[in-house]
Amino acid sequence: MVLLDGRKTSADIKDEIALKVKEFKDSGKKIPHLAAILVGTDGASMTYVSGKVKACELVGFKSTLIELPKETSEEKLLQEIEALNNNDDIDGFIVQLPLPKHIDEQKVLLTVDPDKDVDGFHPTNVGKMALDLPCFLPATPFGILELLERYKVETSGKHVVVIGRSHIVGRPISILMSQKRLAGNATVTLTHSRTKNLKEITLRADIIVAALGKPEFLTGDMVKDGVTIIDVGITRIKDDSKKRGYRIAGDVHFESVAPKSAFITPVPRGVGPMTIAMLLKNTLLACERKQ
Amino acid sequence: MVLLDGRKTSADIKDEIALKVKEFKDSGKKIPHLAAILVGTDGASMTYVSGKVKACELVGFKSTLIELPKETSEEKLLQEIEALNNNDDIDGFIVQLPLPKHIDEQKVLLTVDPDKDVDGFHPTNVGKMALDLPCFLPATPFGILELLERYKVETSGKHVVVIGRSHIVGRPISILMSQKRLAGNATVTLTHSRTKNLKEITLRADIIVAALGKPEFLTGDMVKDGVTIIDVGITRIKDDSKKRGYRIAGDVHFESVAPKSAFITPVPRGVGPMTIAMLLKNTLLACERKQ
Repeated sequence: MVLLDGRKTSADIKDEIALKVKEFKDSGKKIPHLAAILVGTDGASMTYVSGKVKACELVGFKSTLIELPKETSEEKLLQEIEALNNNDDIDGFIVQLPLPKHIDEQKVLLTVDPDKDVDGFHPTNVGKMALDLPCFLPATPFGILELLERYKVETSGKHVVVIGRSHIVGRPISILMSQKRLAGNATVTLTHSRTKNLKEITLRADIIVAALGKPEFLTGDMVKDGVTIIDVGITRIKDDSKKRGYRIAGDVHFESVAPKSAFITPVPRGVGPMTIAMLLKNTLLACERKQ
Repeated sequence: MVLLDGRKTSADIKDEIALKVKEFKDSGKKIPHLAAILVGTDGASMTYVSGKVKACELVGFKSTLIELPKETSEEKLLQEIEALNNNDDIDGFIVQLPLPKHIDEQKVLLTVDPDKDVDGFHPTNVGKMALDLPCFLPATPFGILELLERYKVETSGKHVVVIGRSHIVGRPISILMSQKRLAGNATVTLTHSRTKNLKEITLRADIIVAALGKPEFLTGDMVKDGVTIIDVGITRIKDDSKKRGYRIAGDVHFESVAPKSAFITPVPRGVGPMTIAMLLKNTLLACERKQ
């Protein structure tokens, strides 16, 4: 059993990006600049955003954090987005989700200039992804592809079962892995809450991407020997034996699944760290495109 | 075994559209107007385009056919498209594919205003489709959904196997049928040229969409009893016993598959006629949106 080490791989990618940034600096080129908009003070969102800002510093990017109070009107937020769209120094930016309920998330995402949409959430980027055209891939699926590639996990002709049809993970990874590409050319089955006999299906899978958001859902009896497991879940579970009072669980019951796996991502330190690395990679691409 | 009669269903849809157009006329509203650009004199393309123009007449739409010589430059074609984008009387238009080799098809499709892209080929429409937002669905997958709905074929929780990953049929139908929607909520497996053990997979399918473009590829031994079959193929096969020297074959070997099927589309008169009906429906929607 080989651990797909997202922490190490993301560190490698950050090193590669930092090297690129140094080259840019040395040759007098523009330094990549990522901005993030955070509305409100949700704890998890603040953690995510500060992680992204720190990652920018680490690789030598410029970063700008725009913090808005949770009462911010939709109109005001759209104005901030337009300002970033029109700011030539900003290569890419993200609006941290979820947004307060009085703001229409879809309207916000549609306002982001697709050429600066380094989260890959704008319909134009999603469409280009589905049509296999150059675009910003959404960071989590992009990170999964990168992990599979770097560990040379064979995917061509393999049966991939994706659990969960979310717009940001399940749907895009099901599209990407069935395309003609590295970490692609797989036969992909997309399963979800309406799927019957899920266990029958997962038992036939060569690769399983678990992205449904139910802690420890996938158990050892549901997988065959030699399977490759990508665990996208990340849930806090109350655990009084821990200092901080909780532990982090994935969608996979690691103890029973790992012994049967050829490759498996741990949680934490699997897919999670890859997501930030790929956001940086998208920002680098956005900056390179303009040179 | 029930035939999914595309000719009859498309006639019903056209009747419904014609009724709408009459209502528009009676209340002084704008009449839908579809334009088509045809470059060159390819026989099949001319047949398709003239079929679309005739269908417009039948339902009371205005139609405009722009025929350009096959030597037309890319620049000139893009100008024609811009003119249609800016022409307020045109609700929707299509550029008949394939285009001559000296023209970049992708560039052409990207120039079409997404709000007039009734073929649903622009990345913005494809992305909205994948994100389950209002958009123009590509006509052939849209026609398949409509056929399944009108014949009340149960899809929720069923296992759908799609054969072929083309941008205009296989990919979009695999996305659509796995979404929360009528004729959706299915567990979908997308198969293609790199799929191993296809027969094992098709034998487990409740519904098969054959869209690979190989005549009579799917045979009776590859399907289980009670399967529903959607045959998207349409190939001319030399046949001297026919007056015109050829016959039309689908991707399904009808004689061996039909007896095992609960529902099956014939070829011709199955999916084909639905495609034109849904193009009209998209044009009607484009016109309604502006009212």
